[in-house]
Formats: sequence, structure tokens, C-alpha cells
Amino acid sequence: MTRVRPLAISMGDPAGIGPEIIAKAWNARMTHDLPPFVAVGDARAIERVWDGPIARIGDPSAAGHAFGEALPVLTVGDAGEIVPGQPDADGARCTLHSLELAVGLVRNGAARALVTGPVSKSQLYAIGFTHPGQTEFVAERYGVAGDNAVMMLAGPSLKVVPMTTHIPLNAVSGALSIELVVAKSRATARGLLRNFGIENPRLAFAGFNPHAGEQGALGREEIEILAPAIAILRAEGIDATGPFAADTMFHPRARATYDVVMCCYHDQALVPLKTIHFDEGVNMTLGLPIVRTSPDHGTAFAIAGRNLAEPGAMIAAIVMAGDAADRRAQTAALTA
Amino acid sequence: MTRVRPLAISMGDPAGIGPEIIAKAWNARMTHDLPPFVAVGDARAIERVWDGPIARIGDPSAAGHAFGEALPVLTVGDAGEIVPGQPDADGARCTLHSLELAVGLVRNGAARALVTGPVSKSQLYAIGFTHPGQTEFVAERYGVAGDNAVMMLAGPSLKVVPMTTHIPLNAVSGALSIELVVAKSRATARGLLRNFGIENPRLAFAGFNPHAGEQGALGREEIEILAPAIAILRAEGIDATGPFAADTMFHPRARATYDVVMCCYHDQALVPLKTIHFDEGVNMTLGLPIVRTSPDHGTAFAIAGRNLAEPGAMIAAIVMAGDAADRRAQTAALTA
Repeated sequence: MTRVRPLAISMGDPAGIGPEIIAKAWNARMTHDLPPFVAVGDARAIERVWDGPIARIGDPSAAGHAFGEALPVLTVGDAGEIVPGQPDADGARCTLHSLELAVGLVRNGAARALVTGPVSKSQLYAIGFTHPGQTEFVAERYGVAGDNAVMMLAGPSLKVVPMTTHIPLNAVSGALSIELVVAKSRATARGLLRNFGIENPRLAFAGFNPHAGEQGALGREEIEILAPAIAILRAEGIDATGPFAADTMFHPRARATYDVVMCCYHDQALVPLKTIHFDEGVNMTLGLPIVRTSPDHGTAFAIAGRNLAEPGAMIAAIVMAGDAADRRAQTAALTA
Repeated sequence: MTRVRPLAISMGDPAGIGPEIIAKAWNARMTHDLPPFVAVGDARAIERVWDGPIARIGDPSAAGHAFGEALPVLTVGDAGEIVPGQPDADGARCTLHSLELAVGLVRNGAARALVTGPVSKSQLYAIGFTHPGQTEFVAERYGVAGDNAVMMLAGPSLKVVPMTTHIPLNAVSGALSIELVVAKSRATARGLLRNFGIENPRLAFAGFNPHAGEQGALGREEIEILAPAIAILRAEGIDATGPFAADTMFHPRARATYDVVMCCYHDQALVPLKTIHFDEGVNMTLGLPIVRTSPDHGTAFAIAGRNLAEPGAMIAAIVMAGDAADRRAQTAALTA
């Protein structure tokens, strides 16, 4: 009966497309056989963009029962005046409260896994949010150090890990270190086992420079950072290979040879992922004691409130979170 | 009768897959309605890997007549002992001579356009070749400065220009300048008109940093280099837009909004191109007085001589060169 406990979905910015894609995901619950979930935020944000049935609940344990007939919503705080496409400080505070509550529900066991809706970082920064993003916020709530929490982007045929994320491209080389690569890779290997059941995951490393540096002729990050890190990982029994020339790693035949690509910088990971899986990319945080996923897109304020938002990535995030939570529960039962 | 003059195809390294894919392209001449071409190199390199008919010709004007029944080959020098997969200095010298002769045939009008087979740069460097690659060699033979010769990679649904190419990633920011971006973009716009007949080509610029720098928060190359260059180009009437976040530029809907993406570095261009069009990418040099294309892959020594090489990219390079040469000839006739 593990499926009776719902997933907790934080609504994200109430002026963004979060409320709409959560509602549309609920509409698609039968087609995609979605596990029960509860939206955490301001129910009025959904009512602004959707005519369907909402079940305002006070306790997440009511979500499983309500889910078949209505979208369960746990209202937190007050987002103030909500105008789709026009974010403001009240909305940002509601965003933060709903994230905090959703994390808490998973932490105390009331919810099985966390799915986070899209937030506006600049709106959050304006009200004093000090984490780089939701991933770091969640990691801190669980006492996990930054290097050990890994952002993985996943679509149906490709998983990528950007080992550095939102920093200038010229800062990447300085931020990469053998220690960072090893820590991110260990968390990735473990996360692929725990969340996806991949027994000996194959980690393929993308080179930093063109042609993976051509033995040092086009840069030395491969020789000085990636190769030593790969040697350490292999000595630990992790199936780490490379570094390979990044441009030949992402076509269909190449994708069959690994489980995940460890990438040196943001665009090296995100360009191929979004080229192939633009409407269905899921961001999963590995290295946490809980399952956390998120649709891999932003608030899309420009189309909010116009019934134009595609729920595909949110649906994929819900499915991935539910499957991973099921797998963890089974593993826990077997090893108990 | 412009089609009677052949294309000249330099064979590339005789120990690589160049001879095999040229022969396989000739086999496919009917299916793909290929224009007549003459292979320039050592005919024995083809005989080592192919049983089909070869017409050894001494004058390119004989190629058009011979082409229907046999693969026309203009032999240059002597590649010595040829062992597929085992390049050597004799082979490198033959590579260079065949490139030089093929360029000469196009220059004196005996051939309509140049297609170059894959070479081994390290083999060429070992015999004293001082150009970074074939593109720069050809550009110099025509007196074109490096910044004005543009490498464009093209597949059926995507064209990209890497504005910098084979340099360490950390050197890109220093190599990019407003002048370089403007020069490469002018050559690209003109090349798309001359070779593809695109009247007002739409050039979309990819940002250097993640999220195109987020207004400077994640790097300043967009503000200091790309935006000013785009402003100059727009003032000249060129349809230049961006810089955009690179990761959202390459999915199918995005690709419909531009004719070419101007990319800051090698992998930014090559990763999406090879992800989408791995077996059919063509390298075309823009900014030259002649048409020059090349299959976008290397010598593949590891599979040479094993009848495993896919001729798709070579066939696409031949078709693109023939079409562009036809278009230039028509334009020249109209404006004569």
C-alpha cells in the first residue's frame, strides 16, 4: 500500500506555469497511470488557470483517497494577488513556503517523494533566498554537502550530469578538480543504482576541450583532472570511461554504450539533452536521502495563464519520482 | 552543359576510409543522382578496398564521359605501400599532393567544385604541413584571410558555424572579438546566399556562458562581444539575433526559426550537429571564391579496409558541392 502515500509537488512560482502543468498532469493521471500526488501552494493559483475539481486538504494522508476525483491541494500561506505572468514578492514568499512545506512532508514521511515546480530565482533572491537554487536548498535541509548532491538531467534516451552548473564558462576549469569529479561521480553511480536499479552503471566522461584535448595539444584538463579522477573511480570498481570527444558522444549509437554522461559544464550537458528531449527532460537530484525530481524548464512567465503550457516534463518528473520511490521502498523492504 | 565538368575529390589519407567512401559514393551515383566527379589520389588505394571498375584518366575533361561506367581517378604521385589502417609518411605526402592537385583543378576551371576526403592532421604535421587544417590550406591558396574563411557544418535540418575551432576551451574567450564575430558573420551571410540561395539568411547567435550569461551574472562575453557585434551586423542589414541560451536553440521547433547558428566554440557547434546528424554532416567552407565541402568525419583508421565505412556524409558532401556549384554558375550567368 505504499502508493497511498502521495508525492508532494511544490507549486513553484504562482505566477508561472507551475499551477497549470500540475493541473494538466492531474488531468492526465489515468493515461499515464500517475501515482497520487498533492500540490503544495496556493490553491487560488490553480483556480486562476484551471476549471477542474480541487480538493483542499489539511493532511497529506487525505490525498490518496481524494486523488481519483479531484486535485488535492495543501494550501500554504497566501500568495497575495496572483496575476499569471506577473511575479511579485508575495508570490515569491508563497513559492518558498510551499517548497519548505513539501520538503517537510517528505522528511516526516507524509509524502513519498518530492517534485518541485519551476521557480524564479531572481524573485527568490529578491526576498532574501540565499541558495543558488532549489537543489542546494533541499540538500541543505538534509545536511548534504554541495559536492555530494548531484543534478542529473534525464530524458527517455539520455541522462547527463553537469559537474559544474551556473558559473561563467571561464570559471569552469578552475572549479573542476579531481575531488569534485570523484565526489559527483560516486553520488551519480550510487544514485543510478538506488533510483533506477542500474547495478553497475556505466559513467562516460565528456572531455572539456575540443577532441578531448588531443593528448594535451588542445588543453590539459583531460590529463590533469579527468583522467586521474577516472583512474580513482575505476580503482573503486566504478565503470568510468573516457574522457571522450564530446561531439561524438550523443548520437543514438553512442548513447547505447553508457548509462550517463558526466559533463564538465552546463551547456555541454544541457545542449544535447534539450536538443533530444526538449519537452520531457527531468531534473533529478542524486545524493539525497529522498527522491527529488523537477521538470527541466523554467516558469515561462511569457505564456503563463494562456493555457499554452505543455505538461510533458512535469508528468515525466512525477513518473520518475514515483518509480524511484517504489524502487527505494522495495530495496528497503528487502534489506530490512 | 555545366554538369559535364566534374567535381574534384581529393582522396584524403590513403590508409583511411577516404578511398572506400569515394568508391561507395560512386556505387550510389544513380540512387542519389550524383554529379560526375573525379577522385584525385592513388588509384591503388581504392583497389585495395574495392572491386569495382576504375577509369584511370589523365585529364579531368575525360571524367564526365567515363563516370557512368567507372570511377574516374586521376593518379597523383605514389602513396608507397598502402595498408588500410596504417598511415605513414608516403601516404601523408600523397594526401597533400592530391589536395594540392584537386585545388588546382578547381582553380583552373577543370573541375567545378572541391570535395576533400578525410586527412590525418598528425600525419600531415609530421611531413611539415604548417596549416591548422585543409580549410586554412585551401583559403591560403586563394589568398583569403583566416577570419574571412568560415567553417560551416551542415546537416539536413541544422547549419552551425563554430567561430573558433581547434583551440583550448579556456582560450576561446580571448580569441573571440567583435571584429572576429563580425567578419565570420558577414562571410556566413554571404555564403548562405551564394551557395544555398538564402536571400536574407537568419543568423542566430549562441551565448558563450550558461543561460547566455543572465545579463552578466554568469559572464560578460555576451555583453562585451556578442551584443555589440550583433548590433553592427544588424546596422548592415544582416538578420542577426541573440545571443540566446545555447541549450534551448537546437530542438526541432527552435531550428525552424533560423538558418544558421553562430557558435562561440567547437563543441557548442559540433555537439548538437553530430547529435542530430551524425552520419550525414557536411563541412562547407564559406568565404572562398570556390565551392568546397568535406564529409564531417575523420580518417577512421580503426575501421579502414574492413568495408564498414558509411558513405552517407561523403554523398551529402558531393550533393551539396554540386548544388552550390550549379547555383553559382546560374547566378554568374544571370549577372554576366
